Amino acid sequence: MIKIGILGYGNIGKGVEIAIHQNPDMELVAIFTRRNPKDLKTITETETISISEIEKWKDNIDVLILCGGSATDLPEQGPQYAKMFNTIDSFDTHAKVFEYYNKMDKSARRGQKLSIISVGWDPGLFSINRLYSEVILPNGTTYTFWGKGVSQGHSDAIRRIPGVKNAIQYTIPITTAMEKVRTGATPDFNIREKHIRECFVVVECDVDKKEIEEKIKTMPDYFENYDTIVHFISEEELSKNHNTMSHGGFVIRSGKTGINQVTKQIVEYSLKLDSNPEFTSSILVAYARAVYKLHKMGEIGARTVLDIPPAMLTNRTQKELLKTII
Amino acid sequence: MIKIGILGYGNIGKGVEIAIHQNPDMELVAIFTRRNPKDLKTITETETISISEIEKWKDNIDVLILCGGSATDLPEQGPQYAKMFNTIDSFDTHAKVFEYYNKMDKSARRGQKLSIISVGWDPGLFSINRLYSEVILPNGTTYTFWGKGVSQGHSDAIRRIPGVKNAIQYTIPITTAMEKVRTGATPDFNIREKHIRECFVVVECDVDKKEIEEKIKTMPDYFENYDTIVHFISEEELSKNHNTMSHGGFVIRSGKTGINQVTKQIVEYSLKLDSNPEFTSSILVAYARAVYKLHKMGEIGARTVLDIPPAMLTNRTQKELLKTII
Repeated sequence: MIKIGILGYGNIGKGVEIAIHQNPDMELVAIFTRRNPKDLKTITETETISISEIEKWKDNIDVLILCGGSATDLPEQGPQYAKMFNTIDSFDTHAKVFEYYNKMDKSARRGQKLSIISVGWDPGLFSINRLYSEVILPNGTTYTFWGKGVSQGHSDAIRRIPGVKNAIQYTIPITTAMEKVRTGATPDFNIREKHIRECFVVVECDVDKKEIEEKIKTMPDYFENYDTIVHFISEEELSKNHNTMSHGGFVIRSGKTGINQVTKQIVEYSLKLDSNPEFTSSILVAYARAVYKLHKMGEIGARTVLDIPPAMLTNRTQKELLKTII
Repeated sequence: MIKIGILGYGNIGKGVEIAIHQNPDMELVAIFTRRNPKDLKTITETETISISEIEKWKDNIDVLILCGGSATDLPEQGPQYAKMFNTIDSFDTHAKVFEYYNKMDKSARRGQKLSIISVGWDPGLFSINRLYSEVILPNGTTYTFWGKGVSQGHSDAIRRIPGVKNAIQYTIPITTAMEKVRTGATPDFNIREKHIRECFVVVECDVDKKEIEEKIKTMPDYFENYDTIVHFISEEELSKNHNTMSHGGFVIRSGKTGINQVTKQIVEYSLKLDSNPEFTSSILVAYARAVYKLHKMGEIGARTVLDIPPAMLTNRTQKELLKTII
């Protein structure tokens, strides 16, 4: 049995708690929290422990799954616990992955442990698919489309505008752009041509909606380069109609092969997820098995999903894989 | 530079010859053939060598790509050359992969070489996707659909019927079945419900077409469990309209997550290929890089694509991968 610990009990922590029970070779040992452990209402019967006690659990946990966020939790918790435990995390700030990797590698090596970072679907499964299709079709272009689904970062950005009480932002891929790529074309899209941003916003009374709409649409990095649609709705409507966790996306490689490089070859990978956090959690749990197996084989340091052989994710034997999966 | 040799110069051999030139870190050293080397009209300027001379090239070739067929060439050539060279092959007889793997592993170990077997899209990329989606969504069902594309095995089976001069058989996935899976359902399809078989057949004069049609439709293993459509056409029409190399397919996993296991999660991988042999060749060449790198690291024996970390397929550095692919 692989003994798993969970650090952080939000949507991902809960998803991991459930996903572990889909894997008969794993056992959830404890959930660690910064809150008062007694206040945690867990889904399954699991011991809840204050994070301050975590070091005592060093020898009782094979893999610690870090379920915190990428903005503030993981940059601190990752390097701190990678020297005590084998870890899995879903660090997803693309621009800072290299820096995070180096810190995690150093910390894990110091503790003779193994960490797989940036596990999830993007980064994660999408990264794997970008790499496979690029190496197979070197002459080509890869397109990643996200959605339809809620972007927490963009929703938060709207919520920071004075006068906004609440907001949900959907990233929506533009179907005609996807269809164009699927014909074997390799268009140079600008940002605006790939995704639409649709916002549902709840404002305080007596604010100028026109002004808020303008502030959203012109916000640098987040919205200014997109076609953005803004709807003002009530808090009731928001909580009733926009509490979805669904998401998804597409990685499409359009490449050319052959003597004159005119043969079209299209590789497409797509996800249609009714729950983004539950799916991400399921990926984290599968990679927990890989980190366990590889650490037993003597590997230490930091890895990404690109470094992990697919067969490390399963507990099936080589014979079973050859007879049923190949 | 990775020095590549090609053994066998059919559609796959030609595809490999071209694909190598898409990869600036590779060099095609020689093409080996059972035919008279002088009779080989190669696409690029490449030395052609009789297979009887191959052993002399042992130290001049890093990876030998075996481009023969799975029915008779590879079962013999694979174990024979795996002890002299690092090899890549596209052995695709699913039912015999385990037996072939064991022979290749023994032979490669004897020669201290490394072989990756069953490289292609099915087995190959489809196997990888079946494994990833199964480990991530343990509660679910995987569906593989092939086509539309020509099945050589089924075309050959028709050609063996007395009175048949030529034939082409298309495997066609049933769209309504795929759509059903994409809704998150997990139906138990029988064979007939997933694919249609459409045959274009050229017959000798004076044969009983009804009888031949009946023989095709009732042929065990190949056709009896399918809805099969038979068209009788002229040799001219066959060579004009049915010389396509296009193919494709889909791997769809429909899984459930969450507390009551009711959250639907769909993972789909698909290929739309204008040339099946050129795409397969491109995969073989990408895995040649992996076998080269892993053998340099000291690995020997047989492997499948499931054993190979995605990062082994690229010549990009870890830093580049972290900054551009993740």
